[in-house]
Amino acid sequence: MTVPNAWRQLSVWLGIKHPIIQAPMAGGGITTPELVSAVSNAGGLGSIGAAYMKPEDIVQLAQQVRALTQRPFAINLFVPQPQPADVDPSPMLAVLARYHQELGLPPPKPPTWPMPSFDEQVDAIVESGARVFSFAMGIPPAAVLERLRARKVVLMGTATTVHEAKLLEQAGVEIIVAQGAEAGGHRSTFAGSFEAGLVGTLALVPQVVDAVRVPVVASGGIMDGRGVAAARVLGASGAQLGTAFLSCPESGAAPAYKAALRAAKDDSTVVTRALSGRPARGLANTLSEELKDTQALLPFPLQHAATTPLRSAAAAQGDTRFMTLWAGQAAALSRAMPAGELVRELVAESERLR
Amino acid sequence: MTVPNAWRQLSVWLGIKHPIIQAPMAGGGITTPELVSAVSNAGGLGSIGAAYMKPEDIVQLAQQVRALTQRPFAINLFVPQPQPADVDPSPMLAVLARYHQELGLPPPKPPTWPMPSFDEQVDAIVESGARVFSFAMGIPPAAVLERLRARKVVLMGTATTVHEAKLLEQAGVEIIVAQGAEAGGHRSTFAGSFEAGLVGTLALVPQVVDAVRVPVVASGGIMDGRGVAAARVLGASGAQLGTAFLSCPESGAAPAYKAALRAAKDDSTVVTRALSGRPARGLANTLSEELKDTQALLPFPLQHAATTPLRSAAAAQGDTRFMTLWAGQAAALSRAMPAGELVRELVAESERLR
Repeated sequence: MTVPNAWRQLSVWLGIKHPIIQAPMAGGGITTPELVSAVSNAGGLGSIGAAYMKPEDIVQLAQQVRALTQRPFAINLFVPQPQPADVDPSPMLAVLARYHQELGLPPPKPPTWPMPSFDEQVDAIVESGARVFSFAMGIPPAAVLERLRARKVVLMGTATTVHEAKLLEQAGVEIIVAQGAEAGGHRSTFAGSFEAGLVGTLALVPQVVDAVRVPVVASGGIMDGRGVAAARVLGASGAQLGTAFLSCPESGAAPAYKAALRAAKDDSTVVTRALSGRPARGLANTLSEELKDTQALLPFPLQHAATTPLRSAAAAQGDTRFMTLWAGQAAALSRAMPAGELVRELVAESERLR
Repeated sequence: MTVPNAWRQLSVWLGIKHPIIQAPMAGGGITTPELVSAVSNAGGLGSIGAAYMKPEDIVQLAQQVRALTQRPFAINLFVPQPQPADVDPSPMLAVLARYHQELGLPPPKPPTWPMPSFDEQVDAIVESGARVFSFAMGIPPAAVLERLRARKVVLMGTATTVHEAKLLEQAGVEIIVAQGAEAGGHRSTFAGSFEAGLVGTLALVPQVVDAVRVPVVASGGIMDGRGVAAARVLGASGAQLGTAFLSCPESGAAPAYKAALRAAKDDSTVVTRALSGRPARGLANTLSEELKDTQALLPFPLQHAATTPLRSAAAAQGDTRFMTLWAGQAAALSRAMPAGELVRELVAESERLR
């Protein structure tokens, strides 16, 4: 049994005080400059969820973060997925038309490819001054990793299995986020079936820690000092929390989203492809339930693009039936605390459990 | 945040030295008197998995345990499930016939109800001298609970959600095992969908601890001192481990089963109804994969009965394609250590992580 003492080492390496990472949450303007900077200013590592962002917006958001903090922060992208062959969106548009009508929206249009150029997003990261480049859903091309490493940007990849963790390490990735099945948002699984990649955090973290030499960050289901302390004794070098930061006043989550988190229970979430075409964990709602068994789902990210008008309008109207409500399995432990205070509480609570 | 100091209290109450519980594993003769007594003699709590056992066999096995240890032990039953309406087993028998032929077995017969009388099993527990009655898949009738409580038998029920934990507490159950999604074997879910009841241990335990006043035992994915230490900081009063004890020399698991555990990886398991008709986690094999999408599955426990001849013959032949291979998501951390030594290692390792 490995008993790593790397909890402090990761902080020293990254130049942060506590290895508490605010997870990058893409879409919906959640990772505001205020949220990211508050986490970093409290000694943790804030992250910009930039997956769907245009390069110029990444640069601008990073500037806003840098205006609010001198401390390190991270920017996260999704590794590009293979472009699917031509698909006919009309069955899905027919499904969505009903909901559009219900919300008083014009009929849905065929989706266009929603992802900006990955290479240009990477250019933006180089320009951004981010200390850490974190990514999910795969391994970026070697040239991208080398380019960032040459600029002293730390590379942090996401694994849902031991196999993926080894692939990331072999590619030269320097920190591995072990994403347990409890985690809210998109599954990062890229080298195996999504079902097999749903390994619980408590089971996954020690197996990944034993399999790689690089520091491992635990994620999935961590909401308070108990989860942070558990991550530490499981052998992780840090803890990444997404859902816990959604309820902070600095987060850009819509008010109805925050209200839904307050009402969440342990069994409120599902892993669904309905919103984006790729499995992601969120609070069950009309969209996730009624599209559960449809054959009309488009591949990621076209389903994301197809449902964007509906989800945006629903968020504006506060209608949780059709909103994005990514959440982990411990969302019920949410506290509506300012982000900096939350970081300090997480540290204090976990220290008391030593 | 609750920070219970109940880790020692549970031991004091049960008269054991360490709150390390060897999980009851029903079927296949796994919980031998040697395994149960070795765990109890080392200061943990051994458990007999008696769900499918006849009353007289329960009494006899308990006698054998008592001959090997003076320490407390537990006996576990499944709460009776509603008898399904008449079902036609012929489609399933047709599916199984192919495998029977492959293994040189006579054609499969219509299954008969495989569960002994629950009331008579409870009689056997009263007679057995067991300190703890643990159970899964529901809440026994109030009269049963009262009868056992009057005999000073401690009641330990299994919950997969906060809701189930509250129902158990309301029924007067004295210890709650929080079964995380990582756990091997049958899901205990009894008040909600099986999908929603797949909550990871790290997310489930603190939420259950916050919701009930009785001690909570963490289970699911715990294999070594790291998992035990995590259970403690998450607020649990003890840890229950099943898969970790399967590889012990005292366990009755078939040699091919132990070999399969040695070869397991973090992503080797699936939750399948194929073997028993009820979702349970085990290593994926031909039976779990080829029966994944069939409409012919019988309800629990008839599917169990229908597949018993096949699974038994396969176990005797060492053919893992058709065997029961229940295992949790951290099976890869298995160590083939004598059970008493394993208990002592778990305690020592977790103490080092304080």
